[in-house]
Amino acid sequence: MPSFSETTAQAEHATVGDRSVGPVLPQVARFDTPLPLACGRTLAQYELAYETYGTLDAARSNAVLICHALNASHHVAGFYAEDPGNVGWWDNMVGPGKPLDTQRFFVVGVNNLGSCFGSTGPLSTNPETGRAWGSDFPLITVEDWVDAQAQLADRLGIRQWAAVMGGSLGGMQALDWAIRYPSRIRNALVIAAAPNLSAENIAFNEIARQAIMTDPDFHDGNFEAYDAKPRRGLRVARMIGHITYLSDEQMDAKFGRQLREGLNFSFAPEFQIESYLRHQGEKFAEYYDANTYLRITKALDYFDPATREDGDLARALAPATCRFLVISFSTDWRFPASRSREIVKALVRGRRDVSYTEIAAPHGHDAFLLDNPQYHAVVRAWFERIASEIGAAQ
Amino acid sequence: MPSFSETTAQAEHATVGDRSVGPVLPQVARFDTPLPLACGRTLAQYELAYETYGTLDAARSNAVLICHALNASHHVAGFYAEDPGNVGWWDNMVGPGKPLDTQRFFVVGVNNLGSCFGSTGPLSTNPETGRAWGSDFPLITVEDWVDAQAQLADRLGIRQWAAVMGGSLGGMQALDWAIRYPSRIRNALVIAAAPNLSAENIAFNEIARQAIMTDPDFHDGNFEAYDAKPRRGLRVARMIGHITYLSDEQMDAKFGRQLREGLNFSFAPEFQIESYLRHQGEKFAEYYDANTYLRITKALDYFDPATREDGDLARALAPATCRFLVISFSTDWRFPASRSREIVKALVRGRRDVSYTEIAAPHGHDAFLLDNPQYHAVVRAWFERIASEIGAAQ
Repeated sequence: MPSFSETTAQAEHATVGDRSVGPVLPQVARFDTPLPLACGRTLAQYELAYETYGTLDAARSNAVLICHALNASHHVAGFYAEDPGNVGWWDNMVGPGKPLDTQRFFVVGVNNLGSCFGSTGPLSTNPETGRAWGSDFPLITVEDWVDAQAQLADRLGIRQWAAVMGGSLGGMQALDWAIRYPSRIRNALVIAAAPNLSAENIAFNEIARQAIMTDPDFHDGNFEAYDAKPRRGLRVARMIGHITYLSDEQMDAKFGRQLREGLNFSFAPEFQIESYLRHQGEKFAEYYDANTYLRITKALDYFDPATREDGDLARALAPATCRFLVISFSTDWRFPASRSREIVKALVRGRRDVSYTEIAAPHGHDAFLLDNPQYHAVVRAWFERIASEIGAAQ
Repeated sequence: MPSFSETTAQAEHATVGDRSVGPVLPQVARFDTPLPLACGRTLAQYELAYETYGTLDAARSNAVLICHALNASHHVAGFYAEDPGNVGWWDNMVGPGKPLDTQRFFVVGVNNLGSCFGSTGPLSTNPETGRAWGSDFPLITVEDWVDAQAQLADRLGIRQWAAVMGGSLGGMQALDWAIRYPSRIRNALVIAAAPNLSAENIAFNEIARQAIMTDPDFHDGNFEAYDAKPRRGLRVARMIGHITYLSDEQMDAKFGRQLREGLNFSFAPEFQIESYLRHQGEKFAEYYDANTYLRITKALDYFDPATREDGDLARALAPATCRFLVISFSTDWRFPASRSREIVKALVRGRRDVSYTEIAAPHGHDAFLLDNPQYHAVVRAWFERIASEIGAAQ
């Protein structure tokens, strides 16, 4: 499996130290019960790649599900023995003594359907044809993901999650768990998320998709058959995404108008930010699958639980019975604090149990992956409360 | 000449009414005095397309230069008799009785070097080869543009502009006039501009360039020789640019999450914002030249007068003797108000004569092209003062 990261910032901050869960092994669960999808199609069978850290207690009450965002995976914490540099994307959050303490909790990281990192997706073999699904893999929604995650919970013998937690698109999955599986979740941690995408969010996704789909090497999604890969499109898509992960001020602090050498009056990279973005694009184009990228951005676009209640988010959240922790970051302009507050207001209006924190951080949307002391203290305190409740119940 | 607009918003608001300058004719001035460029090359000869509105007074004291932004032209006001729908891009600002009143001022709109709308650029014939310049056309800077505009001023017998005015990249040209031709400008109107591009601004430009340059139909800029056009790249570039022209809230107000029909679980356009952006991209790819786009974004990236004074903008502005009117818009996130205030602070620090207005407007960067009453009142008052000074001097 390739090394990957939601953002570069993550890679810089992840550390393999004393408090790491250590070497981990990905596992695969195979399901033969058909999974009906929102698009109307059905996956007759599928696999989910996952990892677990810590020990499930006898009462099966200390399980926490981590949901990943756009291009991360089930590799949340620890590292692979054969590739020690490949550290989980939320390793600063999950481990012994970390905010989500694996000495107390049994943590499950799962790769979503449609991904290219192990769970069934466009790169997998379509049993009906014997060839890779490719462009014929169905479009998947957040709800489909959560339904599949519920199957995994059953398989692991987890009737109720102590918490479901995620940032960005992962936060949307936590929200959906709370709404559609209320009896199976005691806490939802919804971080750097939004109740749906704004027109601007959709616009960024659509441009990324257009870059991929108009790449002549895309071949309507059947690029594998042509021994091709739409690298140009993936590069541009990644560069576009990357801008939305960082705050303007963070970009200025990190790159500003710094030149690599001097002005050369050509279209070779001159500013540091140019070579940084090109490098990010190149890396991504090598390890990511174009059909997966298209599908995950669509899942983001589609998510909008309020539509089921004529746009009334409070009504959409009414089935939820868990406690909510909602966290936003001051310079996140992909999902600004105001979007998180929409969730909070809807929960308050519905008299649900919700805590909200806006963290002052310069890092933009990326901040949810970084080791911000205030942010981590809030999450730590939340899990300490959950742990003490588990202790009291036993 | 194709119909074009800086943004769609402009097209919606431009009107051909009683207060139009009416039908206009573009003119072309040919220069045979070589123009040395910042890149080290020299244009041996060149042409500038321009339009004029109103009458130059006997003292030649009422001339106003309008500088255009990324993809506009010399067609600032009025319309073409043979194409009445092709209304000037700032027609709401310039005309009889309008904020810049053509009954009192002689207004000059000029197309910049490197453009694809009439002035010498990549589509023009390189006299040395007899073929179109294409990718061999030099990279041009804001300073080069202003030097060429000064040649046009000489040709028109204008020793000193009553004002030089521009929005966005046009504002940067007004700033450069003030710095490098202080005796030739009495007022600089610097609207929705910045003293240089931020890392994020450069990033957006670079992604647009990458989209164009990696389009297989680009052929290293020699696409004409291959009878090709990098339409895919231009489409993506335009879509990226377009997002930065509009505010998040304006996009939500205009498009929100509206669907065209329903969800179809495909990659055909589903949300209105998707088809809007695709349409903008398609249009742009038909009428705009890729080599021009690359060069104009580079001119934006390069502009940074403070570098000539070790980053001290006040010192860079020290040669200026004109009065400044700086205007920003509250929801402009391409060139936020904070960037305009950098200019204002530097001018104040240098004890220059500067007025500053931040207009509350929901339209983002686009606002500078729109008919906002408060904005237009400020500009109108400014020109009334200039007109009264001209009157008093005569």
